[in-house]
Amino acid sequence: MTKKKPLILVTNDDGITAPGIRTLIEVMKTIGDVVVVAPDSPQSGMGHAITLSNTIFCDEVVLKENVKHKEYSCSGTPADCVKIATQEILKRKPDLCVSGINHGANNSINVIYSGTMSAAVEAGIEGIPAIGFSLLDYSLNADFEPSRKFVKTIAKSVLKNGLPKGVVLNVNIPKLKASEIKGIKVCRQAKAHWEEEFDRRTNPQGRDYFWAKGRFVNDDTGEDNDEFALSQGYVSVVPVQFDMTAHHYLAELESWKFKE
Amino acid sequence: MTKKKPLILVTNDDGITAPGIRTLIEVMKTIGDVVVVAPDSPQSGMGHAITLSNTIFCDEVVLKENVKHKEYSCSGTPADCVKIATQEILKRKPDLCVSGINHGANNSINVIYSGTMSAAVEAGIEGIPAIGFSLLDYSLNADFEPSRKFVKTIAKSVLKNGLPKGVVLNVNIPKLKASEIKGIKVCRQAKAHWEEEFDRRTNPQGRDYFWAKGRFVNDDTGEDNDEFALSQGYVSVVPVQFDMTAHHYLAELESWKFKE
Repeated sequence: MTKKKPLILVTNDDGITAPGIRTLIEVMKTIGDVVVVAPDSPQSGMGHAITLSNTIFCDEVVLKENVKHKEYSCSGTPADCVKIATQEILKRKPDLCVSGINHGANNSINVIYSGTMSAAVEAGIEGIPAIGFSLLDYSLNADFEPSRKFVKTIAKSVLKNGLPKGVVLNVNIPKLKASEIKGIKVCRQAKAHWEEEFDRRTNPQGRDYFWAKGRFVNDDTGEDNDEFALSQGYVSVVPVQFDMTAHHYLAELESWKFKE
Repeated sequence: MTKKKPLILVTNDDGITAPGIRTLIEVMKTIGDVVVVAPDSPQSGMGHAITLSNTIFCDEVVLKENVKHKEYSCSGTPADCVKIATQEILKRKPDLCVSGINHGANNSINVIYSGTMSAAVEAGIEGIPAIGFSLLDYSLNADFEPSRKFVKTIAKSVLKNGLPKGVVLNVNIPKLKASEIKGIKVCRQAKAHWEEEFDRRTNPQGRDYFWAKGRFVNDDTGEDNDEFALSQGYVSVVPVQFDMTAHHYLAELESWKFKE
């Protein structure tokens, strides 16, 4: 008896031609049937944006004859890609959705700004087990080779164990040689923020404009968070939920009574 | 002795000319000193997008002579507006950041897609007490009059009580007459999702494209959530956190051991 291969949806936020997604596709093809629906251009920092007031193009990309999987290039955001894939392209609900491998960190507070994670969260909302993968190297020419082993292990673990409703995984991989990575650590999201700075410049027409340039500040002294794990040479795995209720503050807020 | 007036930053995601933000500015001017930094165009569904690969314009809007507050129109996202306001425009950290009043619902899972809430969350990350306000009426000509009383009460309550680090408020107001609104209810975020559909059309050049059109599906039978409170005629107030760690799943995930 041959076991049915899992159906795996692959997407990202750096665009369909980025080296990170090409690595992810190769790894996923070793464990399942792959369909790719990814943005036609880079979408970093898109957060959980969706396209409401504009049309979305989504065209099949014709691949080499000997390539067995299908790929679609989409003008929408990462979240749009997942929506279109599940509704218009895939014939059945995928067994797994993977997003990445992102060129750059999505640990800690970055999960909020991340297009990579928004695709994983969107899949999670639709009840699909999902993982966002990110490498702590922003370079287009980042070395994704050391990531392969961990991406495969974690994806296979999710296929085997499943994930509960409302939970997806945020995986970050340190920028290290394969031999230097110490292993995989389950963590919580570190408390951190970006100290914002803006470069103010003047355009040739005399109008001022800004370039954002932030500085990441870790406010967290704990050793059970993703920022610490990565600094110690571990791959971090954070279970992420999209119930954003601050349950611990409900009772206190109730006590306000909301009177003038 | 005169008490110093609170400094209030006002933003939104429907754009600086939207009737919702005009109402919010009027109400805030009755309780504090107001500075407005808002997108120059509608940004609905932007999630927590930030502008990284493009320039941001942010120009002062010249108001009528008898108007005492300042307004800035910004080409960036709602989250960009908050970042630029705090770093480049305001002379001190504001005492409160309010976003809205959004033309349309941001309760339940919509918090994830919401530009209105992303501005409030961004302020929260920067340690500023923040509230996102939304009216359950998508019309540009929505009636914001019944909202005024509740917006004022909730903003004053936050100024009085403060909010703990890591918590902002998501306030939704039912589309009802003032006399029909029953009061304010503190709630958790309802478990719900959008059942996605896409309208497939063909452009004059023969290329297919899509329009997103979703159907909101409430999967939650509880009576302590925001969807239920709104359906019963209450204004819903959900405390929202941006630690997205699924803490309840950490131990289970640890037990996986991540071996093949």
